[in-house]
Amino acid sequence: MSISISSPADFHVHLRQGSISELITPHVRKGGFDLAYVMPNLKPPITNTEQALKYKADLERIDPSVQYLMTLYLSSDLTPEEIRKAKKAGIVGVKSYPRGVTTNSDGGIESYETYYTIFEAMQEVDMVLNLHGEVPSDADANIHVLNAEPSFLPHLFKIHAAFPSLRIVLEHATTRAAVEAVKKCGPTVACSITAHHLALIVDDWAGQSWNFCKPVAKFPDDRRALQEVVREGHPRFFLGSDSAPHPPHTKYTSTPMHACAAGVYTSPILLPLVAHLLESFGALDKLEGFVSGNGRAFYNYPISAQKHVKALVTLRRTSPAKLVDEKYVLGNDSLVPFWAGKEIGWEIVEEN
Amino acid sequence: MSISISSPADFHVHLRQGSISELITPHVRKGGFDLAYVMPNLKPPITNTEQALKYKADLERIDPSVQYLMTLYLSSDLTPEEIRKAKKAGIVGVKSYPRGVTTNSDGGIESYETYYTIFEAMQEVDMVLNLHGEVPSDADANIHVLNAEPSFLPHLFKIHAAFPSLRIVLEHATTRAAVEAVKKCGPTVACSITAHHLALIVDDWAGQSWNFCKPVAKFPDDRRALQEVVREGHPRFFLGSDSAPHPPHTKYTSTPMHACAAGVYTSPILLPLVAHLLESFGALDKLEGFVSGNGRAFYNYPISAQKHVKALVTLRRTSPAKLVDEKYVLGNDSLVPFWAGKEIGWEIVEEN
Repeated sequence: MSISISSPADFHVHLRQGSISELITPHVRKGGFDLAYVMPNLKPPITNTEQALKYKADLERIDPSVQYLMTLYLSSDLTPEEIRKAKKAGIVGVKSYPRGVTTNSDGGIESYETYYTIFEAMQEVDMVLNLHGEVPSDADANIHVLNAEPSFLPHLFKIHAAFPSLRIVLEHATTRAAVEAVKKCGPTVACSITAHHLALIVDDWAGQSWNFCKPVAKFPDDRRALQEVVREGHPRFFLGSDSAPHPPHTKYTSTPMHACAAGVYTSPILLPLVAHLLESFGALDKLEGFVSGNGRAFYNYPISAQKHVKALVTLRRTSPAKLVDEKYVLGNDSLVPFWAGKEIGWEIVEEN
Repeated sequence: MSISISSPADFHVHLRQGSISELITPHVRKGGFDLAYVMPNLKPPITNTEQALKYKADLERIDPSVQYLMTLYLSSDLTPEEIRKAKKAGIVGVKSYPRGVTTNSDGGIESYETYYTIFEAMQEVDMVLNLHGEVPSDADANIHVLNAEPSFLPHLFKIHAAFPSLRIVLEHATTRAAVEAVKKCGPTVACSITAHHLALIVDDWAGQSWNFCKPVAKFPDDRRALQEVVREGHPRFFLGSDSAPHPPHTKYTSTPMHACAAGVYTSPILLPLVAHLLESFGALDKLEGFVSGNGRAFYNYPISAQKHVKALVTLRRTSPAKLVDEKYVLGNDSLVPFWAGKEIGWEIVEEN
């Protein structure tokens, strides 16, 4: 049995910079993807058009076969003028990080009202707002990593009500509450879901830092809600891998003095992994919509309009099932992927 | 300023066997404690009187200055006759582990009714039932590490209703629900609380395996409930450290193939740590009740009745605050304690 998917698109990926970028950028194609929606949380963050275009050129130099859609990092450096300039330059979205909740988010935002003039300009020129939907932990208010996402949802409703034509993506949803919130919103609000959140629950990262990411994987019922909305084929839910490379030595902690880095790395196995997971909960027939059609429709990047198109990516069953590589190495950089050493039932058919 | 505490008693501690036991058993005294209520989850588990007495002799050989109260591991090997024999031999309690939820619990129980003849005998001879109060995770039933304890509480109520005179300790409570459940029960039901659960919440073990233990630390509101019941001085709540040594290499995971060991090690710093924590939430005046009086009263081991008594253990403020040792070593064994490298505001005054 084989399956052919039209031009898979990953609508949330971290491609970093420098030597690690040389290792991971080609993994977008290796994982079966034609399009990468690129996160701007570099050091320093990508906050203007020039930086974004330079970054795009860097990525195209590494692998010109992939289409890169660029984003800006929402911060007080951003202006309505810069939004209009960015739009003209082909930049697609603006990513909002709450302060301090994930990798390189120290410059993230604390109050959304401050950015309403930016959102107004984004709505006018039709740029997409990508929301990292968590509020920072606050013990006094009983806010912690498990309820940080549900606690964020009032912000989503408020921004959507204030800017009903602004296209918004709630990124990497992990809870039933988030799925229901996005469904309740109008057609301008969509939601990305990672591969790993279709697989993991809290038990899987308890004492297992390799499965630790932000947002953390939640409860079995939350995972079920994510799986259900994929199986339902809801058009406003689509893949954004949030694939995030962290050097192995940052993914575990040999002393109690530091916590490990948050993030799991799925790029090089992404399409086979997603097929494997969707098959596990009876949603293999929704694969193309989830990894290509739904996201492309929401972002207005239909397959026919893109120049980088590989018409079809074909998956076949592995027999026997293949084990995921335990490590990827380039020069001094190495990465351990999610699902390392475990079986995946599908593989990409390489072209001759 | 100094504080003197009458004969501190740790009503839940793991002293292991073999070379690691040589390292950790003296840490009971080092941490300021006169009495250790010793867990039976060895390999193989302590399931009869002979094993328990031999184990006790081993511990007394290592450090005769501490009083060891011994327990048996609840399993199908146990009989009412063995309960009566154990009681006569001075064994104090029987520990119940749900199958598979913590270290060496593979032989744990699945159904409590099976053990009603044992509980009946224990009630008759007045032995204590120590409950690890968690049900195993079950994704289909939405049971996971965060609700495993609340989901257990109906078992507590049921056993207490069936055996109202049986003394029961709900061990290492971590949730507001558990605190409220124990309060609702009659005077035969008590509750141990660890030091680390007075300090940690879920955010602290997210990506930080050194803070990972079972039961996992819960939400800020749960921690507040534990702190409140200590500050209230409720007589049926007392310290059981659940101090559990795991070799450093088992406490983190250099590859994704294994999860790390569950447990934190507090024995060598226990009394100063508990004083430090109680002071942080305004309960320093409840220190003696929490670490000595309450537990001794429930177990019927008052200070005056024991032969090992060190009348008073004195704590003084450290100035400047001291850092906890980063490692304890004996031969080939080493251990990294909880709170390693962090400040503690109290230290034990050594006798001349």
